Amino acid sequence: MADIDSIIERATPEPTIGVTTGPIRGSRKIHVAVPSSPDVRVAMREIVLDPSCSEPPLRVYDTSGPYTDPRATIDINAGLPPIRSGWIAARGDVESYDPREVRPEDNGQLGPDRSGGVPQFPAAHRRPLRAKPGHNLSQMHYARRGIITPEMEYVATRENLGRAMLKEYKRDGESFGASIPDFVTPEFVRDEIARGRAIIPNNVNHPESEPMAIGRNFLVKINANIGNSAVASNVAAEVDKLVWSIRWGADTVMDLSTGRNIHDTREWIIRNSPVPIGTVPIYQALEKVGGVAEDLTWEIFRDTLIEQAEQGVDYFTIHAGVRLAYVPMAAKRVTGIVSRGGSIMAKWCLSHHKESFLYERFDEITEIMKAYDIAYSLGDGLRPGSIADANDEAQFSELYTLGELTHRAWKSDVQVMIEGPGHVPMHKIKENMDKQLEVCGEAPFYTLGPLTTDIAPGYDHITSGIGAAMIGWYGTAMLCYVTPKEHLGLPDRDDVKVGVVTYKLAAHAADLAKGHPAAQMRDDALSRARFEFRWRDQFNLSLDPDTAEQYHDQTLPAEGAKTAHFCSMCGPKFCSMQISQEVRDFAAKQNQGIEGFIAAGPTGAETAAASKAAAIAGMEEMSRVFKETGSELYMGAGPRERD
Amino acid sequence: MADIDSIIERATPEPTIGVTTGPIRGSRKIHVAVPSSPDVRVAMREIVLDPSCSEPPLRVYDTSGPYTDPRATIDINAGLPPIRSGWIAARGDVESYDPREVRPEDNGQLGPDRSGGVPQFPAAHRRPLRAKPGHNLSQMHYARRGIITPEMEYVATRENLGRAMLKEYKRDGESFGASIPDFVTPEFVRDEIARGRAIIPNNVNHPESEPMAIGRNFLVKINANIGNSAVASNVAAEVDKLVWSIRWGADTVMDLSTGRNIHDTREWIIRNSPVPIGTVPIYQALEKVGGVAEDLTWEIFRDTLIEQAEQGVDYFTIHAGVRLAYVPMAAKRVTGIVSRGGSIMAKWCLSHHKESFLYERFDEITEIMKAYDIAYSLGDGLRPGSIADANDEAQFSELYTLGELTHRAWKSDVQVMIEGPGHVPMHKIKENMDKQLEVCGEAPFYTLGPLTTDIAPGYDHITSGIGAAMIGWYGTAMLCYVTPKEHLGLPDRDDVKVGVVTYKLAAHAADLAKGHPAAQMRDDALSRARFEFRWRDQFNLSLDPDTAEQYHDQTLPAEGAKTAHFCSMCGPKFCSMQISQEVRDFAAKQNQGIEGFIAAGPTGAETAAASKAAAIAGMEEMSRVFKETGSELYMGAGPRERD
Repeated sequence: MADIDSIIERATPEPTIGVTTGPIRGSRKIHVAVPSSPDVRVAMREIVLDPSCSEPPLRVYDTSGPYTDPRATIDINAGLPPIRSGWIAARGDVESYDPREVRPEDNGQLGPDRSGGVPQFPAAHRRPLRAKPGHNLSQMHYARRGIITPEMEYVATRENLGRAMLKEYKRDGESFGASIPDFVTPEFVRDEIARGRAIIPNNVNHPESEPMAIGRNFLVKINANIGNSAVASNVAAEVDKLVWSIRWGADTVMDLSTGRNIHDTREWIIRNSPVPIGTVPIYQALEKVGGVAEDLTWEIFRDTLIEQAEQGVDYFTIHAGVRLAYVPMAAKRVTGIVSRGGSIMAKWCLSHHKESFLYERFDEITEIMKAYDIAYSLGDGLRPGSIADANDEAQFSELYTLGELTHRAWKSDVQVMIEGPGHVPMHKIKENMDKQLEVCGEAPFYTLGPLTTDIAPGYDHITSGIGAAMIGWYGTAMLCYVTPKEHLGLPDRDDVKVGVVTYKLAAHAADLAKGHPAAQMRDDALSRARFEFRWRDQFNLSLDPDTAEQYHDQTLPAEGAKTAHFCSMCGPKFCSMQISQEVRDFAAKQNQGIEGFIAAGPTGAETAAASKAAAIAGMEEMSRVFKETGSELYMGAGPRERD
Repeated sequence: MADIDSIIERATPEPTIGVTTGPIRGSRKIHVAVPSSPDVRVAMREIVLDPSCSEPPLRVYDTSGPYTDPRATIDINAGLPPIRSGWIAARGDVESYDPREVRPEDNGQLGPDRSGGVPQFPAAHRRPLRAKPGHNLSQMHYARRGIITPEMEYVATRENLGRAMLKEYKRDGESFGASIPDFVTPEFVRDEIARGRAIIPNNVNHPESEPMAIGRNFLVKINANIGNSAVASNVAAEVDKLVWSIRWGADTVMDLSTGRNIHDTREWIIRNSPVPIGTVPIYQALEKVGGVAEDLTWEIFRDTLIEQAEQGVDYFTIHAGVRLAYVPMAAKRVTGIVSRGGSIMAKWCLSHHKESFLYERFDEITEIMKAYDIAYSLGDGLRPGSIADANDEAQFSELYTLGELTHRAWKSDVQVMIEGPGHVPMHKIKENMDKQLEVCGEAPFYTLGPLTTDIAPGYDHITSGIGAAMIGWYGTAMLCYVTPKEHLGLPDRDDVKVGVVTYKLAAHAADLAKGHPAAQMRDDALSRARFEFRWRDQFNLSLDPDTAEQYHDQTLPAEGAKTAHFCSMCGPKFCSMQISQEVRDFAAKQNQGIEGFIAAGPTGAETAAASKAAAIAGMEEMSRVFKETGSELYMGAGPRERD
């Protein structure tokens, strides 16, 4: 993908880690002050429009962190500035302590010098924080005691986007019982967190993170998966994918690293991430026992949680709903158990013929979560892996258990979200959402797709994007992306971008359908730009300005074409938009509405004649511009003007 | 895109026209006999599966015509064999006559020698057919008189796919009032055509076409747009795009050519097309008057209809619903009138301050339609071009008129479908479908997308694929594809393929959700292949086997990896599918259901231990295969095993 304006920053020493920086095309970074809290400044992005339109810049949600801020100094070896440290310290409920020693098994049996593996993160020798004895650091705990944290204030401003600039609300969506407010106040955020309807995943050991909320009364969020691999360990590629995915809009990133170097790779990722990082701790625990699921123990798992908690992981996927009794239910399925974590736990249960230790030790896990403010992402280990298995007994049995565990976690004021399917045909999607809302008390739903067919490997970002948009509309709070390589191979950088942009558009489609008051501002701005032939504005307002411009330039590469009042679909000779403008001018002149127009008779015809003369002059001007560009222009073969 | 097995056929003389032929990877062409009609043989495709699975070949709907039949001789200069000629002649209601002379304005003022333009189609000197005086050739007319035509018999067999092979039906869809039968009989087809709920677009002058039905009680269909352009006239590229789009599944193709050479380009396309061809005759009529909309007359338009009818166009988009009174309604819009045909007619109405001649002459147009059996595709000239304009007064006013015209056409037994939007957010899609069904008496709906957001130029195949899947589920009979170049430029060959495959998956998602009895067979077959690591079967069963294999090979290029019992997502060390198989084996041995499993106690544990030993042996075997492939295998970084 072209990324002309950006700069590749390269840090030394080894390994050379390069990430994409520089503003997103046509945008500038802004930091919006929060009146009540002088030290809270919310990062946003403004898309500046052509002066001819007299429209203010459009403010959009921005996940990209300091990497798109030309004023920021990026040093991958130092990590991002810890913007939340002061807020955390000011609450007076944390203590620092000597961290758990890094052990060879944390990095796949590498020794302390890490020879042959990923280098240690240079600035990694911090003392981690945890709750002082008797304290609970979770945002839910503060919320339930009536405390509005700076994190909640940050989220309130961030979620409002340009809502304050809206003169009139457009609230014609169908929200299926959600309670999206006209305006987000810090008190609203607090209340949503207190009820468990939203979470702010923010480990105290990840102070670099910019607070964000996941909940169905906020903008729909998306997650991107990255992670290194058993053989091709390359921390540079993973940090690059992190920065690349948030550039295009990933709200959180999961590090799914396996194999060797898991510990150090994660450290590089967290220290350089402005978005919450999630993990599946059972992956690393499995590595520590040489990949033999039945050798897992609670002690090894617990130690892995502490290890990752100290590094700053913001949410943990925990498959505590895969209970012994549910495992045989998967035997009837076409595709059995497709979740990696789910099958690890199924194998453990089967081998020992015992109840899952994740289920049995759930309250002990909760104690760890609240000491660092880590959110649960209760995993759906029995999610369906095919259309045939959707909404079956195994899947919903697990969901009921996740509901039980949600309420148990909430008793300790620990934040929870629930993971969801999988492969589900369209007519079975809503049942997933409805059951989840009911059973899990409106805890945020976090779904993978769902994929609406099994027959499109290579296009599963699209089969799943359909399901994602729909379940987002129905109430899912965060959508886990799927890339074109799903089921086939490992996503590369281009796949990551396609996955992120696909899911951004699905999330936006959901926001529109839910009637989010600020959502349509961007559609309207882009459509006005389209109607007025402001090509640059049209590119810049889109989710992927680079690709939009590149596609346009394949047909009309000349610079003049970007200011021309026509496009490659119709060419300068005939233009629907121009005729629409004539209709509009005509109606404005008449200023009598439809009845006046119909009744106008000869006068109308005269005006039409005048309008026609103006149109001809306009067309001649267009034709002149057209000839000057010297481009070959096609007429009427694009799908847009099918008729 | 890789297309390894195919051959590029090149015809001479000039211009060199090459099309892609050869079987679709892993498939073979079959022709299924229709017992009641010995001369009807229905083209289908069978995907042959690995002998290890003992499954019969999967029969799928096939739009690709003789091009994928290795036994067929392809000669672009001769066109396809006229398979329907005998059926048409046997009805005894047609007469042949001397065709209208080709005029210079038909091809953009080229002279009879066509110098500088597209060459004349070599075999183009046929005498066209039309109804004998007093006759009506439409399939609807036969249907209403109780006649089952060979076209209806062809459709019945074609729509059943492998339904006869289904041992048990899976009918758990939600069809929103559709009446999809368990089995399609010729009588059912006849009845649907008679009621106007389905159409078979089959001009008697396009005997090369393989009959297909468009209606909500049949499989959801898709259309691809092609067409040459004002400047870069290249008939070779258009014939290539035709063959390419039907290879990937386009059920009909619209020729949206403009500029010069329209007549000759269309002749090349129709003569080589096994699928129905649609056009927007007003495009060519506009060219004949030098692009000046207000100079259009009924006489020029009528002459264009005859010209195209004689060539064999199967359906005409007619924008007869753009009435004078509706034009000013577009003045309030963000994006005015975006339909090219709609704006041509709006301009005409405005300039003359007269009612549309398409509306006023509608019955005269109907007379032409029935003389050749051309179906109406009533155009939505006022469809919304932005989220802001969705479901507005202009759009629905036109729809009501289209409903009126549908019933008028049906009085003459002429087949009708209705075109639909456009840009519509998810929560407003169903209203479109519901209104259309009500107002147009269940005439088939044929929609462009709809696009569910305005903000993703470059990804509009996806924003629209979301809306297309949903409206297909709600009842739309045919989905008009959108390519990634929508709003930006002209689609090339790759864009056409991406658009077609995206829409095939959307149509399939709709079929699944509607509960089409044969739809899930393919998902299940692919998912079984996935579970059993039959990689080749997985590729071959997918909508785009070439891309699936290519993506797989980017991670695991070795041939051995295609038979290996693992994938790049987990590698050989740990495999969810393998564990699922163990669970299944275990349950089978117990044969006691869940209760037996839970109660099994020590016996269960012993069996588990035995199963474990078998698993270890299996894993060792996998590990051996893995080492033999010599590939680098990644572990656990793919999105599939997010947890």
